[in-house]
Amino acid sequence: MLIVSFLSDFGTSDSYVAEVKAVLLSQSPSLVLVDISHHVAPGDVRTAAFLIERTWWRFPPGTVHLVVVDPGVGSERGALAIAFRDHFFVGPDNGVFTFLVGDPGARIASLPIPPNASPTFHGRDLFAPAAASLANRGWFPTLGDPPSKEPLRLLRAEPRLESEGWSGEIIHIDRFGNLITNLRTKDVLGTALLAIHAEPGIPIFRTYLQVPVGAFLAYGGSGGTLEIAVRDGSAADRLQAKVGDRVLAKQGR
Amino acid sequence: MLIVSFLSDFGTSDSYVAEVKAVLLSQSPSLVLVDISHHVAPGDVRTAAFLIERTWWRFPPGTVHLVVVDPGVGSERGALAIAFRDHFFVGPDNGVFTFLVGDPGARIASLPIPPNASPTFHGRDLFAPAAASLANRGWFPTLGDPPSKEPLRLLRAEPRLESEGWSGEIIHIDRFGNLITNLRTKDVLGTALLAIHAEPGIPIFRTYLQVPVGAFLAYGGSGGTLEIAVRDGSAADRLQAKVGDRVLAKQGR
Amino acid sequence: MLIVSFLSDFGTSDSYVAEVKAVLLSQSPSLVLVDISHHVAPGDVRTAAFLIERTWWRFPPGTVHLVVVDPGVGSERGALAIAFRDHFFVGPDNGVFTFLVGDPGARIASLPIPPNASPTFHGRDLFAPAAASLANRGWFPTLGDPPSKEPLRLLRAEPRLESEGWSGEIIHIDRFGNLITNLRTKDVLGTALLAIHAEPGIPIFRTYLQVPVGAFLAYGGSGGTLEIAVRDGSAADRLQAKVGDRVLAKQGR
Repeated sequence: MLIVSFLSDFGTSDSYVAEVKAVLLSQSPSLVLVDISHHVAPGDVRTAAFLIERTWWRFPPGTVHLVVVDPGVGSERGALAIAFRDHFFVGPDNGVFTFLVGDPGARIASLPIPPNASPTFHGRDLFAPAAASLANRGWFPTLGDPPSKEPLRLLRAEPRLESEGWSGEIIHIDRFGNLITNLRTKDVLGTALLAIHAEPGIPIFRTYLQVPVGAFLAYGGSGGTLEIAVRDGSAADRLQAKVGDRVLAKQGR
Repeated sequence: MLIVSFLSDFGTSDSYVAEVKAVLLSQSPSLVLVDISHHVAPGDVRTAAFLIERTWWRFPPGTVHLVVVDPGVGSERGALAIAFRDHFFVGPDNGVFTFLVGDPGARIASLPIPPNASPTFHGRDLFAPAAASLANRGWFPTLGDPPSKEPLRLLRAEPRLESEGWSGEIIHIDRFGNLITNLRTKDVLGTALLAIHAEPGIPIFRTYLQVPVGAFLAYGGSGGTLEIAVRDGSAADRLQAKVGDRVLAKQGR
Repeated sequence: MLIVSFLSDFGTSDSYVAEVKAVLLSQSPSLVLVDISHHVAPGDVRTAAFLIERTWWRFPPGTVHLVVVDPGVGSERGALAIAFRDHFFVGPDNGVFTFLVGDPGARIASLPIPPNASPTFHGRDLFAPAAASLANRGWFPTLGDPPSKEPLRLLRAEPRLESEGWSGEIIHIDRFGNLITNLRTKDVLGTALLAIHAEPGIPIFRTYLQVPVGAFLAYGGSGGTLEIAVRDGSAADRLQAKVGDRVLAKQGR
């Protein structure tokens, strides 16, 4: 079974997702297509980078990950095919693959733009055919030359150990209103409280049920970093929090 | 073909649905995955119970139904695998399978929690592996012991025959603003009018086209119970109706 | 591989899409199901017609296209199965297949309504079984008689060449707020400006990156007609535009 995962900002009200899938299936009818999400906000490369980094490695080896959040479509931005740890990645050179760019294990090729590709829909006319080829044939010598310059990487705020404790930030807000931070759970094992906005001491627990309904808690989230939630509620709504807001994990209680 | 249906409250903006599917496909690459819905309101076990009860039996025998609406994740709530009428069900013990619990034909096992499961994402780390095992191997002796106590059931208001007629309530509101009641169509065959809120006499017809655009009607819905609609409009908006609102089906006109 | 594409106005919060898929897979377990969209506004036949016309031909030959946007369900409106250029189409006779009706290459049959079909859910009880039969067996003599009257066609405003230039209208607004017109790119190659509302001279370029962030542009869209966008923004929001609004492509600058 050849799997193609698909992540985009196309939404699900238009035909764009289906046009891409039709191209994939026309070229390789036995592909198994799995949506990651198509509800990334238009052009939000940072969220796409977060989602693909978190998800790709849970798929079977050989999976091709097609990522089309591409506000620079039609410009001189490059188009990439990447082999990395037995997986393949296809998408624009705009930072969406920041987590693997620079890794010596990543093999990167620059995809040529087909002459008749729509200048506004490379997902369908450039990336989908490349993804189908990769799924069908794996990497092959003629896929493309290495890019002429190093692929783009997004600047990412790394957690810092300060005098008060580990300082980090919100990197994603999920459907439940949970605030996902960049503080790695294994780094902050000894800490007991998380501070954000006017909440200076949110207790760190194991799971939601350890606090009363409506109370704040923090916990080691399913992606490996600390998260902030309100039991049976939305921490995002309660705190009016947004991506980039600062958090601090500190000792004592 | 081994089919896994999947119902959750994960939404489609995050990677949660894809992480579950990646686990399923890693364990069993030939599974056919079919979404029921991922837009159940966060933690709304009652709606999930309504949707799975309505849908499961239309799938082919052997289908595994994975239901992850799980506000109690990480607590002591149990985790269930169920065999019922040639179908399998996997999910939390929180009432989502009310329709089959207590049926002598249901065979129920308690799933042990894997030691390294994320305490906030049993869908990925507990239920998905169990669903893939069931799809691959069917029921098998070592799946788990029967639960130590009777699985939870939601209290459900049953329709009652009163002096005025059949009394029931709204149990679901769909995308079209149609109000789905718990009054079984076959029980109310003789009745002609449905009362709700300030509308004392909504006529019961066969289909939308029997009333003018903008008018109310009731009809035997596709799930086997009476529904209230506005032709080419939203009954929910017009009536400001909500789940739990009382309805009365009565004779005469 | 037998593919069924599926386009509806069912939304994704209810079980309707899954009920249709369960029927398809029960009848033909090896079908590959591809969603086009289920977020067409309730009863919006015109948008469904736009989406299916744009998308169908990108699928492999033999694909069955199931289109269920069906505000007239339960009325005397007909039900159609169509063979057209090695593809099949199934859906209501309400104009959704306007693009092929009248084409001498289209072979059209009238589907009988199964006696126990729900009068409000022909998608599940009539169209899905027909689609599965077509996918499994292709066209066959007993599918149904030709319809007794010519299938419905939507009136569509065709672009007109006027003294000032090509006059057309907005036919779709996509997720990005891009305005898709009915002016065929190949017809307006010589023109340089597009007028809409109070914007008399939107320049026609090749792609978004040729204007500054926040500026208007028009371009030959991926569906073969002119589109209007705002770079990294929403033309629909900026212009308060809607489907049917008039546009004019004109010479000079």
